[in-house]
Order: sequence, then C-alpha cells, then structure tokens
Amino acid sequence: MPGQYKHKHNIQKVGMPPGTLLHTGSMRNEKIKISMLCYSKDDWTEQQLSNVDELLQNDCIADVNWIHISGIHIIDVIEKIGNKFKVHPLVMEDIVNNEQRPKLEESKEYIYIVLKMINYYEQTVNIEFEQISIIIIRNYIISFQENDNHTFQQIRDRIKKTNGTIRTKGVDYLAYALIDCIVDHYYIALEYLGEKIESLEDKLMLDPGPNVLKEIHSLKTEMLFVRKAIWPLREIINALARGDSVLFSQDTLIYLRDVYDHIIQVIDTIEMYRDMVTGMFDIYISSVSYKLNEVMKILTIIATIFIPLTFIVGLYGMNFKYMPELEWEWGYPAVLIFMGVISTFMIIYFKRKNWIGNT
Amino acid sequence: MPGQYKHKHNIQKVGMPPGTLLHTGSMRNEKIKISMLCYSKDDWTEQQLSNVDELLQNDCIADVNWIHISGIHIIDVIEKIGNKFKVHPLVMEDIVNNEQRPKLEESKEYIYIVLKMINYYEQTVNIEFEQISIIIIRNYIISFQENDNHTFQQIRDRIKKTNGTIRTKGVDYLAYALIDCIVDHYYIALEYLGEKIESLEDKLMLDPGPNVLKEIHSLKTEMLFVRKAIWPLREIINALARGDSVLFSQDTLIYLRDVYDHIIQVIDTIEMYRDMVTGMFDIYISSVSYKLNEVMKILTIIATIFIPLTFIVGLYGMNFKYMPELEWEWGYPAVLIFMGVISTFMIIYFKRKNWIGNT
Amino acid sequence: MPGQYKHKHNIQKVGMPPGTLLHTGSMRNEKIKISMLCYSKDDWTEQQLSNVDELLQNDCIADVNWIHISGIHIIDVIEKIGNKFKVHPLVMEDIVNNEQRPKLEESKEYIYIVLKMINYYEQTVNIEFEQISIIIIRNYIISFQENDNHTFQQIRDRIKKTNGTIRTKGVDYLAYALIDCIVDHYYIALEYLGEKIESLEDKLMLDPGPNVLKEIHSLKTEMLFVRKAIWPLREIINALARGDSVLFSQDTLIYLRDVYDHIIQVIDTIEMYRDMVTGMFDIYISSVSYKLNEVMKILTIIATIFIPLTFIVGLYGMNFKYMPELEWEWGYPAVLIFMGVISTFMIIYFKRKNWIGNT
Amino acid sequence: MPGQYKHKHNIQKVGMPPGTLLHTGSMRNEKIKISMLCYSKDDWTEQQLSNVDELLQNDCIADVNWIHISGIHIIDVIEKIGNKFKVHPLVMEDIVNNEQRPKLEESKEYIYIVLKMINYYEQTVNIEFEQISIIIIRNYIISFQENDNHTFQQIRDRIKKTNGTIRTKGVDYLAYALIDCIVDHYYIALEYLGEKIESLEDKLMLDPGPNVLKEIHSLKTEMLFVRKAIWPLREIINALARGDSVLFSQDTLIYLRDVYDHIIQVIDTIEMYRDMVTGMFDIYISSVSYKLNEVMKILTIIATIFIPLTFIVGLYGMNFKYMPELEWEWGYPAVLIFMGVISTFMIIYFKRKNWIGNT
Amino acid sequence: MPGQYKHKHNIQKVGMPPGTLLHTGSMRNEKIKISMLCYSKDDWTEQQLSNVDELLQNDCIADVNWIHISGIHIIDVIEKIGNKFKVHPLVMEDIVNNEQRPKLEESKEYIYIVLKMINYYEQTVNIEFEQISIIIIRNYIISFQENDNHTFQQIRDRIKKTNGTIRTKGVDYLAYALIDCIVDHYYIALEYLGEKIESLEDKLMLDPGPNVLKEIHSLKTEMLFVRKAIWPLREIINALARGDSVLFSQDTLIYLRDVYDHIIQVIDTIEMYRDMVTGMFDIYISSVSYKLNEVMKILTIIATIFIPLTFIVGLYGMNFKYMPELEWEWGYPAVLIFMGVISTFMIIYFKRKNWIGNT
Repeated sequence: MPGQYKHKHNIQKVGMPPGTLLHTGSMRNEKIKISMLCYSKDDWTEQQLSNVDELLQNDCIADVNWIHISGIHIIDVIEKIGNKFKVHPLVMEDIVNNEQRPKLEESKEYIYIVLKMINYYEQTVNIEFEQISIIIIRNYIISFQENDNHTFQQIRDRIKKTNGTIRTKGVDYLAYALIDCIVDHYYIALEYLGEKIESLEDKLMLDPGPNVLKEIHSLKTEMLFVRKAIWPLREIINALARGDSVLFSQDTLIYLRDVYDHIIQVIDTIEMYRDMVTGMFDIYISSVSYKLNEVMKILTIIATIFIPLTFIVGLYGMNFKYMPELEWEWGYPAVLIFMGVISTFMIIYFKRKNWIGNT
Repeated sequence: MPGQYKHKHNIQKVGMPPGTLLHTGSMRNEKIKISMLCYSKDDWTEQQLSNVDELLQNDCIADVNWIHISGIHIIDVIEKIGNKFKVHPLVMEDIVNNEQRPKLEESKEYIYIVLKMINYYEQTVNIEFEQISIIIIRNYIISFQENDNHTFQQIRDRIKKTNGTIRTKGVDYLAYALIDCIVDHYYIALEYLGEKIESLEDKLMLDPGPNVLKEIHSLKTEMLFVRKAIWPLREIINALARGDSVLFSQDTLIYLRDVYDHIIQVIDTIEMYRDMVTGMFDIYISSVSYKLNEVMKILTIIATIFIPLTFIVGLYGMNFKYMPELEWEWGYPAVLIFMGVISTFMIIYFKRKNWIGNT
Repeated sequence: MPGQYKHKHNIQKVGMPPGTLLHTGSMRNEKIKISMLCYSKDDWTEQQLSNVDELLQNDCIADVNWIHISGIHIIDVIEKIGNKFKVHPLVMEDIVNNEQRPKLEESKEYIYIVLKMINYYEQTVNIEFEQISIIIIRNYIISFQENDNHTFQQIRDRIKKTNGTIRTKGVDYLAYALIDCIVDHYYIALEYLGEKIESLEDKLMLDPGPNVLKEIHSLKTEMLFVRKAIWPLREIINALARGDSVLFSQDTLIYLRDVYDHIIQVIDTIEMYRDMVTGMFDIYISSVSYKLNEVMKILTIIATIFIPLTFIVGLYGMNFKYMPELEWEWGYPAVLIFMGVISTFMIIYFKRKNWIGNT
Repeated sequence: MPGQYKHKHNIQKVGMPPGTLLHTGSMRNEKIKISMLCYSKDDWTEQQLSNVDELLQNDCIADVNWIHISGIHIIDVIEKIGNKFKVHPLVMEDIVNNEQRPKLEESKEYIYIVLKMINYYEQTVNIEFEQISIIIIRNYIISFQENDNHTFQQIRDRIKKTNGTIRTKGVDYLAYALIDCIVDHYYIALEYLGEKIESLEDKLMLDPGPNVLKEIHSLKTEMLFVRKAIWPLREIINALARGDSVLFSQDTLIYLRDVYDHIIQVIDTIEMYRDMVTGMFDIYISSVSYKLNEVMKILTIIATIFIPLTFIVGLYGMNFKYMPELEWEWGYPAVLIFMGVISTFMIIYFKRKNWIGNT
Repeated sequence: MPGQYKHKHNIQKVGMPPGTLLHTGSMRNEKIKISMLCYSKDDWTEQQLSNVDELLQNDCIADVNWIHISGIHIIDVIEKIGNKFKVHPLVMEDIVNNEQRPKLEESKEYIYIVLKMINYYEQTVNIEFEQISIIIIRNYIISFQENDNHTFQQIRDRIKKTNGTIRTKGVDYLAYALIDCIVDHYYIALEYLGEKIESLEDKLMLDPGPNVLKEIHSLKTEMLFVRKAIWPLREIINALARGDSVLFSQDTLIYLRDVYDHIIQVIDTIEMYRDMVTGMFDIYISSVSYKLNEVMKILTIIATIFIPLTFIVGLYGMNFKYMPELEWEWGYPAVLIFMGVISTFMIIYFKRKNWIGNT
C-alpha cells in the first residue's frame, strides 16, 4: 500500500527551521535528469542537461520554456534551481518533500501547484503515487517529478509536431496540458479500481472466504489513498479556473473548467465506488450468516431425525430381564416401521419449513 | 448494470490534445439521422436530412429552428455541425463523449446543457442511460442523442398542432420543453425502482435467500447510478432558473422553476428509497439471524431431550455381570417412567422459555 | 403506507404540455364543496356554494374573504377558480397534483403555499397525508384540500366569535392561522410516532420476534414519509418570516417566527426519533445474537456432559468376550461413580465459566 | 427518561389561538414564589413577594432589578407579569410551555432567552431537564424557572457581597452570570455521562449481558436529550456574543464569548461521548459473537472427539452372531488403544488450530 | 486514556465568578520555572528567574522578549504575570485551566492562543496531551506550559546560533516557530497511531481474539481525543493566516499558511485512520463470523457422518429375539460395507459443497 505511513519521514524535521530542504522519499542513487524544452510558434529546441549548473547558465528566450526535473532526491540541485528563479524556501521545501497534500500557492511572481500522479503498473497490477510539482513563472514552467517514467512524453511529442495547437499558446496552456495529463491518468486508476470491484463481486458470489475479505479491506484502504490524493484537486483547479491569476489567460480558463469537470467526475465515481465496496462488505457478512444458517439446517435435520431413532434402538438394546417387546415375534419389524414413520413425519415437517428442497 | 465502468473508454484519450473528438460509446453501423423542425407561430416545416452537408447549406429562418441529431458516433458529422455554429471544440468533445456528467456551460453566444435520459424498457424490465446534449444558440436549438428512439416525439406532435402554446414561444421555451420531457422520464425510473423495492420487500418477508440479497445489492448499485445521473441537474436547472442568461426570457423562468421543483422531488424520493433499501438490508441480516436462532432452538430441544435419554438406555445396555436393576421385574417399566418424567420436565422447561409454541 | 408510490401517477403526464391539469389522487364521486367565509372586524357572513359558478359571480367585499375548496378531483372547478383569480396555469397544475412537495411560490400578485396535513385516525391507529394548497391574493385566501374533514373548523369558530383577535387582523394573519393549525397537527403525528416507539421498545424487551422487526421497519418507513412532508417547511416558513413579501405585515411575522420555532422543534424530534429507531434495530440484532448464545450454551452444556457419558456406557455395552471389567463385582457401581465424578467436574467447569447460574 | 414524550401536551393546543397561555408541565399545588433582588454598586435590597400584585405595585429603581419567579404553573401570575412589562403574548405562551426548544428572541424593547437547565440528582443518580426563561428589559431581568431549587443561589450570594464585581456591572452582566451558571451545570451532566460510560465499559469487559445492552441504549437516548437541550445554545450565545443587541455592552461580550467557548467544549465532548457509546455497542455485538464462537468450539471439540468413539463402541455392541473381533482375546484392548490413538490425533488437530489452549 | 474525563475538574467552578483562577490539573509540588530569552539581530541574553517578582522588575528591551513559564499550578504566579501585562482575567483563567479547547482570542493589545501539545513517550508507548498557551503582546511572547519537558529546546538553540534566520525576525515569527514546533509533534503522534494500526492489522489477520477488540476500541477512543485536540487548530491557524491581525507581518503569513497546510494534512490523515480503524472493526466481526462458520462445518461434517452410522450400529445392538440379520453369516461385513458406502457418499456430498478441502 503506497504512502500509508508516509508521514513517518516528516518526523526527522521536528524542530528544524522552516525552509530546511530534506528529501523524504527513498534515496535513490540515480542522477537527477534535467530536460529543457523551449518552443515558440515556429520553432522548438530540446536539451538534456547533464547537471544543474548548465541549466543555471542557460537562459532560454523562447516563448515557452519548460524545464523538467526527474528526481527530487538531490537537495543541492533543487536548491540551486529554486535560488535561480527566486522561489520561496518553503516552496522548495515542499518540492522535495514527497508527502505533500495536493495544493496551490499563488504569489505575485509565480504559481506553485503540487499534484499526485497515479501510476498504474500492469505487470504487478497495482498503483503507485508520485508527487509532481509545477511552478509557473513568467515564460517558464518548471516541473518536478519523483521518478523518471516518461509521464509527459505525449505532451513533448505534441509540442514537437509542427501543427499542434499547443505551440501557438503560452505557458498557461502548457500548465493546463500537464494537469490534464495527470487527471487523465486518474481514469486509469478508476478503471483499475473498477475492475478490482468487478472481480471481487464475482468472487463474493462464488465463494466468500477470508481472502475476499482481506481484498475488500485492502481495496477500501487503497481507495482511501486515491481519494486523499484526488480530493484536494477539486478546490485547486476551481481556484485556477475562477481566473484570479493574471498568469492564466481567459482562453485557457475554458480548458481548466474542462479539467475541473473531469475531476468532479472522478471524485463522483470514487464516492460511488466507496458505496459499492461498503455494500460488498455487507454482502460478505450476510452471505456468511446465510451459509451458517444452511450449515445449521443440515446439522439440525440430521440430528433431529437420527437422535430420536438412536434413542429407540438404544432402548431395545437394554439388557433388562423382563422386556416383553423383545420377546414378540414382530417386535423388530414393528420398531423398524415405527422409526420409518417418525422419520417420514420429520422429513415432511422440514419440507413444510422449506428446509429441505432449497438447500 | 449500465454505465458502471464507463470511464474505461476515457483511457484512450490519455495524453491526447484537448478538443480531440473521440466517440466513447459503442460504435454503431447505423447512419446518423438528422431532422430539422422549423416553426413560427403560424407555420412549421419538418425535414429529414440524408446527410450533414444538406444541413450546412440549409439556412432555416423560422422563429425557432430545432435540429435534432440521433447518433453521435460519426465524429465527422458532429465536427461539421460544431464548426458551422462556431461551437468550442471542447463542447464538441463533450457531445461525442457519452460518459459526461450532467453539466451546464454558458458562453456569450450559446448555452450548452448535458443531461442523462433514463429509458425504461418494459420487455427487459431494466433501465438504461442515454446522454442528451442541448445547444441553445440564437434562434436554434441543436439536440444530440445517442440513439434513435423517439424520445421527443410528443414534443414534435405538440409543435405541429395548430393550437399548441409551444408555437407562440421561443427557443428558450423549447429548451424547457426538452428538459421537462427528460425529467418526466425520471418519474418512470422512480416507478421502476419503487416497484422493485416493493417486490423485494415482499420477497424479504416470505423467504430471504441469497438471491434476494443479490437483488438488493444490484438495486442499490442501480440507485447509485440513477442518483449520479440526476443529482447534478439540481444545480444546473437552478442556475438556469436564476435567470442570469439573456437567452431565457422571464416568462420561461417560471417553467424552469417548475422543473426545478420536480428535480428536487425526484432527488428526495431517491434519497428516501436509498434509506429504504438500506433498511431492507438490515432486515435481511436480522431475519437470517432470527431464523438461525429458531433452527438452533429446534436442535437444542431435540438434543436436550434425547441425549440424556440415550445415555440412560445406554446405561442399561451395559453388559456388567452384576447390575441389580436389570434383574428386577419392574426395572424396564420403571426406567420408561423415569425417562417420561425427565422429558416432561424438559418440555415444560422449554415451554416456560417460550421456545415451544411460538416456533 | 400512505404516499409511498405516489409518483406513479405522474407518469401519465410524461410529455404533456405544462399547465395540463390532471388530478393525480384517487377519483372520488363526491361533489367538490365550496365554502366562503367573509369577515371584517365587526361582521361576518358564511356561504356554502352549490357550484363553482356561484362563486364566480359572487364578489365578496369584506376585509378578508376566505374561500375553502374541499376536493380537488374535478379539474373543471379548479380551472375556473384559477382563471377568475388569474393564477398561473402551473400553480393550478400543482394544486390538483396531490403529490406535490411542500413549497412556496411568490409572484407579484399572490403567494402560493403547498403544505402536507398529517391526519391521525384514532380508530385505525394510522396517519395519512393530505395536500393543502393556500393562495393569498389581495384580500382573498383560497385554500384547497383533498378531502372534506373539517380540519379548519376551529379557525372558523374563532372567526365567528365576536371577540376573537383574528377578526381584527388581515389575510396574512388568517394565512398564518391556517399554517399554524397544520403545524399543530404535526404534534399529533409526533405523539403517534412516540407512542409507537414506546410500545415497540417494550415489545423489544419482552420478546423480540420477527413481527417486532417488521414493525420497526414500517415505523422507519413511516418516519421517512413524515420527514419528507415536514422537512421542506423549514425553508418555506423561514422565507415567509424573513418578511420579503409585502402581503405579510410586520405584525404577523412574529407569529410566523413562532411557527418556525415549532417546525424546528418538530424536525428536531423526528431526527431524534430516527436515531432512537435505529438504536432499536441494533438492540433487536444484538438481543437475537445474545439469545442464540444462551441457546447454544444450553446445548453445549447438555452435549458436553452427556456425550462422554454415553461413550462410557457404550463402551461397556460392547460384546467382547474378554472384558475383565464386566466380570468385576463392583464394576457397575465403579462406572456409575466415575461418571458422577466426570459430570460434577463438568458442572463445576461451566459454573466457573458463568454459564450455569445466570442462564 | 425525562422529556421523552413532552410534545404530548402540545396537542391540547391544536387549533387554539396563538398567545393562549397553557402550562404544559405537571400541575403543582405549590404557590409560585417571586423574589426581587435590586442592587446598585453600593446597595442591595431583596424581597420575597407573597403574590404577584405586590410585584405590580412595586417599582424598583435600582440599577439592576432581578425578578425571579419559581414556578410557571399558575397562568394568571405569568400573564400579569407579562402585561406589566408589555411582553408579547407569544413570549408569555413560550414561558409557560416547558417544552420549548432553547431559543433567543430579540425585539426592540427586550431580549427573551429560553434555556434548559440540567439538574443532576445525586441520590437517584439521574438527570432532569428544567426550562429557564430570561427576559432582559431595560434595567430589569426577569427569570422564570419551573421549580424552586436554588439554582442561582450562588449568584445571589455574589451580589450580596460588598466586593463582588457583579455589583459594578449592569443587567447584561447579570444575564451573562445566569447563562454561565446554567452552562456550568452542563459540566456536571457531562461528568455524570462520563462516569456512566466508564462504568458501562467496565461491565462490558467483564460480562456483557442484556442488561448492559439496555443500559447502553438508555444512555444513548439520554445523550440524545442532552444534546437536543444544549445544541441550539451554540447559535444563541453566538448571536448574543456578536453584539448586535444594544442591551449588551462591549465589555460583557468578552464574557459571552467565554461562555460560547464552554458550550463548544460541551458539545464537542457530547459528540465524542456519542462516538464512544456507538463503539461500545459494536463491542457488545462482537463480544457476543466471539463468545458464541468459543461456545461452539467447545461443543465441536467434545462432539468431534466422542461421536466417532461412540460409533466404535456401538459397533462392537452389535449382536451379530459372526463378529470375529469379539472373539479375539486382545480385541478389547486393541479397540481401546485404537480409540486412544484417534482421540490423541483429534486433540493434536485442535491444538494446531489453536482451539485448545486459548479457550 | 489521557484527558478522558477532564471536565470533572470544571465542576469545582460551578457558580464561581468569572475570572476566578483555579488550576484544574494535578497539583504538583515543583516550583514554577520561568526563563526569559531576549534577542535582537545581533545579540541575545537568557535568564532563569528564580521567582516571579524578578520577572516583574525586569524589563527586557530587546527586539524580541520570550518569557517561558513551565508550570501553571501556582495561581499566584500566573496572576502576577497577567496583571503586569494587563491581560484580561478570563484569559488568565483559561491559562491555568488545562482543559481548554484550542482557541484563538484577539484583542487590540494582544493575541492569545491555546494549543494542545501531544507528547509521545517511547518507554511507555503512549501519548499524552499538554496545554500550551501563547500570548503575543507588543515585543513580548509569553508561553505557558504545564510541565517542564524541553519542548522548545530546539527553538532556543536556533535563536542562540548567530546565523539563524529567526534572529532577524520579530515576535510574530517566534510565535510561528512555536506553533510549527507543536504541529511537528503531531506527526509523531500520527506515526504512533499508524504503527498501532499496522500492528493491529497484523494481529487481526493472525488471531482475532477479544484483546484485539479491546485494542481497536482503545485506539479508536485515543483517536477521538487526538482529533478533538487538533481539529480546532484548522480554524485558528486559518484565522491567523488570513492576516487580520496587525501583530503578524505579511512575511510571516506565508509561514503560517505552511503550518495550515500541515494541519490539514494531519487532519486528513487522522480522518483516514478513523476510516481504517472502522474497517478493522468490520473485519474483526466478519472474521469471527467466518470462523464460526468453519467451526460449525466441522461439527456438521462429523455429526452428519457419524450420527446415522451410530444409529445403524445401535440398531443391531437391539436385543430382539427375532432379528434375522443378526443370524446371517455375512451380516456383519454387509453392515460394515453399507456404512462405508454411506460415509463415502456423505464425504462426496461435502466435497461438492466445498466444505472439505478448503477447511
């Protein structure tokens, strides 16, 4: 379960001065990758920078300059970038702290957005959360990502195409495109959850064992995390779409409202899924109860028929000297018939009660 | 269960530029049907257009021009219409995407409304959702519908009648009429749900088996979908009825408020149904518990009466050489009487406990 | 359960033009009764009109003219009255549709209020809902009621008394008096529900059978309907008491706020009752569980004591040739003593476990 | 359960004109006690008035004049006081109706506050609700209380002390002091509830029987009533503390905000208690389930071990002529050993399943 | 469970005049420790004052003067400090009352903040609540703490360092630093709760006994208290961060917003934990049910197989004179085979039902 006890890392920061950069994710050995994609309506250039100092010397003067940093575990790099663009230390602290709640911070110079990407891994059939920070500052967009997994490759491709609309628009549109891409991935998470629900419902109908219960519980917990990652976006995108910021043009606001609609839809679906999973839990409980009932009916039928019969045969197994029945010639068949009558009566009784027949 | 995993289709769109038209419903082979109904107070004309180009050349100049498109699966057609009326690409994208949440979008030139029709099929006794988009633009109303199932036939008939009020009113009234027609269909869905609840309650009282449980669960899920389809309308119609848009005349607002009242009533009823279904679930659980109790009482009565008796007869079935009782002449009847006394005592005990008699 | 599937009737209206009058209650054969009570400070006259045309010709010129119509099933009558007072067709549609949600509609000329009367029938010990519509228009009050059951008789009497304050006040005060009378009846419904809860709690403690369960469920459903009928009033009376309408004088607003307080109190109590009924349900479940436990304890005690004993007596009932114990003179008493010891031990064990003694 | 069906009395009022004074509490024979405490910074006088007419003739001219009426069951007395101070008839109606919801009514001349005192009786270990009405009018405070139980004795004493701050302040401060005193008593109710919860938790751990269940239920219901009595105060005190009324000086508002904080704290605690009681209920249910499990394990162990053994001994109790085993010399010991092996195997099996050992 | 019945102490205050200082925590014998840390950008001095009078004579004139009082149990000390700084008596009352709800009080001269520190004790693996009051008044910060446990040691150290940013900022920044330090400690509480949940989930999967149930319940209660302590902070910090107070500079507001984000995150996590704990409870219940089912299956299998067999062997243990089967030579083997067939049939039946195999 990714992220469950994420806050643990924060404890290292107790009492530290604010603005202390401390990466809270797993320390990776890989280098941080920095790519720089600068484009105007007519042209584009892309650079893979080997280290952060190249970036600092490099001044892009295209209409839109998109700096993408894959990896936030080398504090030094983030700090240098932050300083170059005069970003508040608290923002830098948030970027390297991968346990951030999605949020939006607007200052006069820049907008800072934290989002949670939900990556779905087909091989392991699970989802993982990744923090993505976006800073919009003048004609720059700086995006930070924990890992290096080509999330935004399609956007790169669209930019490089001559005829893409994206090239005719500004940084605000690129910011929208990044957010839209992340929100689109939420649909994959929804599909994943939907399929899990579907498969659990099937299992529930066939054989509700304790494994199904564990799966329902872990699905529920997973849904809590997805909800926690997505829920705050509603407010964030709404704030952006209201158009208070000068960095977003009127034209782009329409697109943001579209993203807003998607988020609402995603949240609606998650809420519905939660209701459905809760319902599944109730079904589990009541199937188990129902099955217990069926088990007990069988036991009761068997016991109720045979215990009196066993008593009767025990009766005539007594060794009393004077038991007239034992001497009768027809004693044995009489007892057999008597027991037959009793069990027939019992079976009719249970049939009337609908215990036999629908078992 | 219609629409349950609808978001699946959206995944194809991950990373695509906005405004990419992609039909997300089932691809049908049928042609898109376009009908055009133009009317003024005194006159009306109706045309069935064979293809979209006819529409593009055709300029209706009546007071109200209603273009109805049945089928949204041919992207090309929708795109052409959108371009003719200068509708934003995002709106066109929403029209062909049949997994839209009901919503309202107002721009300076037009109002775009997405609604969910709930069709009830009597033969199969189930309901299905269908997306209906309405664009109100100058003296045009353009309505898009997934299928071709005469939803609005009654409105057509009313327009064609000489004395219908609808002919004396403008596009806003027609828009109201369409919305009202859709909302009226929700009552049919409510009736369908109400009848299901009624029949499930009956089944629950007669014999609560696992089938009833499944039906309750599927009813619950169905209700979640109905709720999801209707709930956003509250806000939408309220926004329209507030009368912020110049496209709606003061006169029509009264009618919209009437529709608003209907929606509130529908939502109220659905919420009440949800409470009732939840209650049914509780009843199921407790009936099963209660029945288990009854089963166990029978078992316990039988076992408690016969197990001691069986012990006694076993006792006198022992083969000890020296068992004085076995030699007594009245040993056998004495044991019989003793056992009779015990069982009488037991039966009285159980009667006192109210276990026998109300079983 | 009154009103449960009321929306059924609405289906007849699907696709009909708005303002189509269609009575949705049960069609009764009785004639509609119209009474007219006109009063000023010093005088009053009362007329029972035989048909609606008399009303139309009759122009009351007293300070307050109260027209009361019992029966809304003859469309024609309602339509004529509506036309005379220039009421909007949608309002007339609402009056004859007895499945209206309580609501308030204010236009420039009149105020239209729909309320639900809750009638309690002592003989049948049940409650029924009745729709009451009130139109306040100039110095007229027109009230519509489904049945003819003297709901407002006390108000009539108060008007006819010389010294009643009601005579010195205007239509707004009469409107208040009518609403107050309806709200007062809610207390009777509350009493009815409170008594049902009380009696169910008693039954629950004595013998929680499936009948109690059914009663709890039906009480819950009934409460849902009561709540649905009363809840919207909160908003309605609040809107009136805010005093936005010129039809209500400052003096009357104090009275309306009093009614508002009553409604809040009624709603509070209903919410509390709902919590209590939910609690009763939980008690039912857990009593059943507890009883099952007790039943199983008895079974287990009996089985645990006697099954081993039965084994022992079975042991010595075996017919092996060489069983030395059988030959011993004291074999039989030894076995009896041994079994006595075992059962004593068992009983002590169960006493320690508190199973015997508090059963 | 105090107050549970309080609304019953209101039924007597159905249809009566508003302002009809009708005492709805229990009719007591005692006389109404009226005390009058008038004080300024330097002086104070206290009078016990024998009847209401004395009060009417008596005009206090001190800075603060506090009239306290113990008993609201003699309508005549209340009516006379109301008339003297020109209080609205509806307010007088509310004063004598002891089923009022806590509320605040502000008019130009006076402020009327209804509160619920919660009295805790140590002897009977229960709580009771008592309605207290406070009218603040010019330099008068009139307080009405159902019973005569020295609730405000401490405030009296503080006034009579020469150095009390209360003497230097106005009516608004006295009003605050009265409210504060009532709210302080809520802490006693909280303590009472807290102790009940504590003792129920202990009982729950020791032996969860049906009595505990009843106690939990009655505690829950009691909490519902306490909550209903306190909840509306939040709004009332907040309204007063906002300082809209000219009757409250800026200086006193600070004290009211303090009371407001207390109310929030009381409500917080009650909500927390409710969560805790709900949790106790869940524990009850699951303890019962768990115990059932334990019971069934014992039964199953006994039955599983002895039923097969009983079969075996029954087998060799058969009377077939030709049963070779019976003739063997070592048949009996062989069977004994075989049965020993079977039961050992069974016991090991149950130990593995952790059924034996932790029972 | 810390703080559970904290309100008890408040009862001593019933009826007392407001502003009466009454320490409600445990009375400790230790002296109150007063430390005074005064610093400007370039310099700092720290004093440990032996008694309160020293403080009163001592006038710090540095930029920021931080007076920290450890211990609030000596009323006299608090009163003197309060008087020196002209703090309202109600504030002083709140400081010594350690059962305060977190709150914010702004007056013209000072801001008063009450917070709850959550201390985690590693040795005893439990958490405890401690009330911390902060008064910001001109260039003074006065902080009150119940115990003397070096909570703010790290902040002291940062101040004493020459290069700390904290030295360059004013009292508002110090206030922020104190609040931030407290909020940072909440993460430790979260970790503690998270680890408890994790360990309980493991226990739940291995062996869900009544101890686990008790632990879940106590965890739930503990979470209620943590939530109660943290929840009000949301509002408080939000109010501060809105920047209404002149005491907080624009520059510090950014930091407060950062703290606000942390609080939201903490609250989010607690809410999620609550959902998870509720889920664990459901799992407990259903594991117990499931296990009961398994137990009953075993019992039923054993009983269903052996009870009929025992009947058969009992049958041939009867002592009737004329039982032909007993005389047959192959009677015994025939019966054995017959019983083998029956049990095989039974086992197949149970295998089909999936009762055997997955047990």
